[in-house]
Amino acid sequence: MRSEWETHTALTPEDDTPGERSFAAELDQGWVVGGGVNGGYLLGTIGRAIAETVPDKPHPLSVSAYYLSASVPGPARVRTRVLREGGSVATVAADLVQGSDARITALATYGDLDRMPDDVATTATPPAMPPLEECVPGSFAPEEVRRVAPLLERFDLRFDPACVGWAVGQPSGRGHIQAWFRLADEHPVDALGLLMVCDALPPVTYDLGLPGWAPTLELTVHVRALPATGWLRVSHRTRNVAGGMFEEDCEVWDASDRLVAQSRQLAMRPRG
Amino acid sequence: MRSEWETHTALTPEDDTPGERSFAAELDQGWVVGGGVNGGYLLGTIGRAIAETVPDKPHPLSVSAYYLSASVPGPARVRTRVLREGGSVATVAADLVQGSDARITALATYGDLDRMPDDVATTATPPAMPPLEECVPGSFAPEEVRRVAPLLERFDLRFDPACVGWAVGQPSGRGHIQAWFRLADEHPVDALGLLMVCDALPPVTYDLGLPGWAPTLELTVHVRALPATGWLRVSHRTRNVAGGMFEEDCEVWDASDRLVAQSRQLAMRPRG
Repeated sequence: MRSEWETHTALTPEDDTPGERSFAAELDQGWVVGGGVNGGYLLGTIGRAIAETVPDKPHPLSVSAYYLSASVPGPARVRTRVLREGGSVATVAADLVQGSDARITALATYGDLDRMPDDVATTATPPAMPPLEECVPGSFAPEEVRRVAPLLERFDLRFDPACVGWAVGQPSGRGHIQAWFRLADEHPVDALGLLMVCDALPPVTYDLGLPGWAPTLELTVHVRALPATGWLRVSHRTRNVAGGMFEEDCEVWDASDRLVAQSRQLAMRPRG
Repeated sequence: MRSEWETHTALTPEDDTPGERSFAAELDQGWVVGGGVNGGYLLGTIGRAIAETVPDKPHPLSVSAYYLSASVPGPARVRTRVLREGGSVATVAADLVQGSDARITALATYGDLDRMPDDVATTATPPAMPPLEECVPGSFAPEEVRRVAPLLERFDLRFDPACVGWAVGQPSGRGHIQAWFRLADEHPVDALGLLMVCDALPPVTYDLGLPGWAPTLELTVHVRALPATGWLRVSHRTRNVAGGMFEEDCEVWDASDRLVAQSRQLAMRPRG
């Protein structure tokens, strides 16, 4: 059975113009959060179009997206252009448009993670997280939050209680949010899904007492390994809120304690 | 007097095609390192073309570059296309080409850092560095290194001795290199110069006992503030060497203890 994630990011190839491929997408209402559509879902949709453009390099190694305007649910088109294709990696430009409005422009390098060397020499350590049963389910969010964020229905989130005080008006002030993550339908997250997972949690500025929408200017995701089946751990931090902007660093760890994705975004500070 | 940096990144506007601007550049031999031209210098050259394309948004806020092939000294062309221009920020696509070879493709969002809010609420702290006089000058590099890396003549680098053991065959293994930085001609580094500073030091893999060229796949720089006049401190770290790749995080701090740039790149692990 196709997962909800695959269904919602499904693409229909359209007539191509020379040097460019085109895919029709239908942005699902279920990914709305506040006034827009979740940026991670959009990135995953773009990511799938790129994967279909270079089918023997199925996995994103690096994707950089620049957000131009807020998307709305409904029809969209993803256009892709191969900039360079070598033996092991391909670099592709992609745009997501709705009507005549450019929503997102992206660059990406894809490869085959199954064919990469299997060396691992990392000093990074998995986030320290209480066991699942001691964490706070996303389903505890109040009805008024859930109404404006149908996005929450897509996930089974279990927040680390040490980083979720903002939900009851007591942000820790450290700029740190972390949670266990799986898809609500319990389908495993694949490499394209990681593009979404890196932008699934609430903005880390909630933990600084700055709730509200934090528009992303730029988001780069590095997919570092194919995730093992099972719960993921997702950790977001910010260290530098300045000049009306902040960076948000995300790590995604899989059930085998492998760091499977690293991302950083630059976003506008919410007015709070 | 024009600085060496300004001279080496100078551009000559060419005839534009509709929707696209074009600039001629002359990549200077002085930025060669090993078999290629330094990626930070190339990014600064692209950055200048973007600044000239959107002159009332003179400062890079975020620039993401994907490296397609190694550049060579000599003529190059930078082409720019404005994707969206709003009141305060503009997003621009840019390509650096030599002949018919695409070298780098980039996306960027520019604005005016003088007009950004002056809030600073950062938990990041400047790198702990010994005073200048206790650090190891880049000019101590042996003659055979300097011959293949004229790049070194562009800078006045003073390496933290705790992170420079790799130069005498004793890498620390921590994946950390840091140094004081200024331009050799002592001209101050501006916002465009920061794009170069984030890729000026040797690859951090030297400190892991993996010397040699580490080809960059992707480099994103966030310029967070205009640097104060004076020495900069530049710190590079990696935490995750895996799958034949590693991430390299860089911070640049100015003389007023302000975090002026953050960057991350994904690069191929040197064969060592």
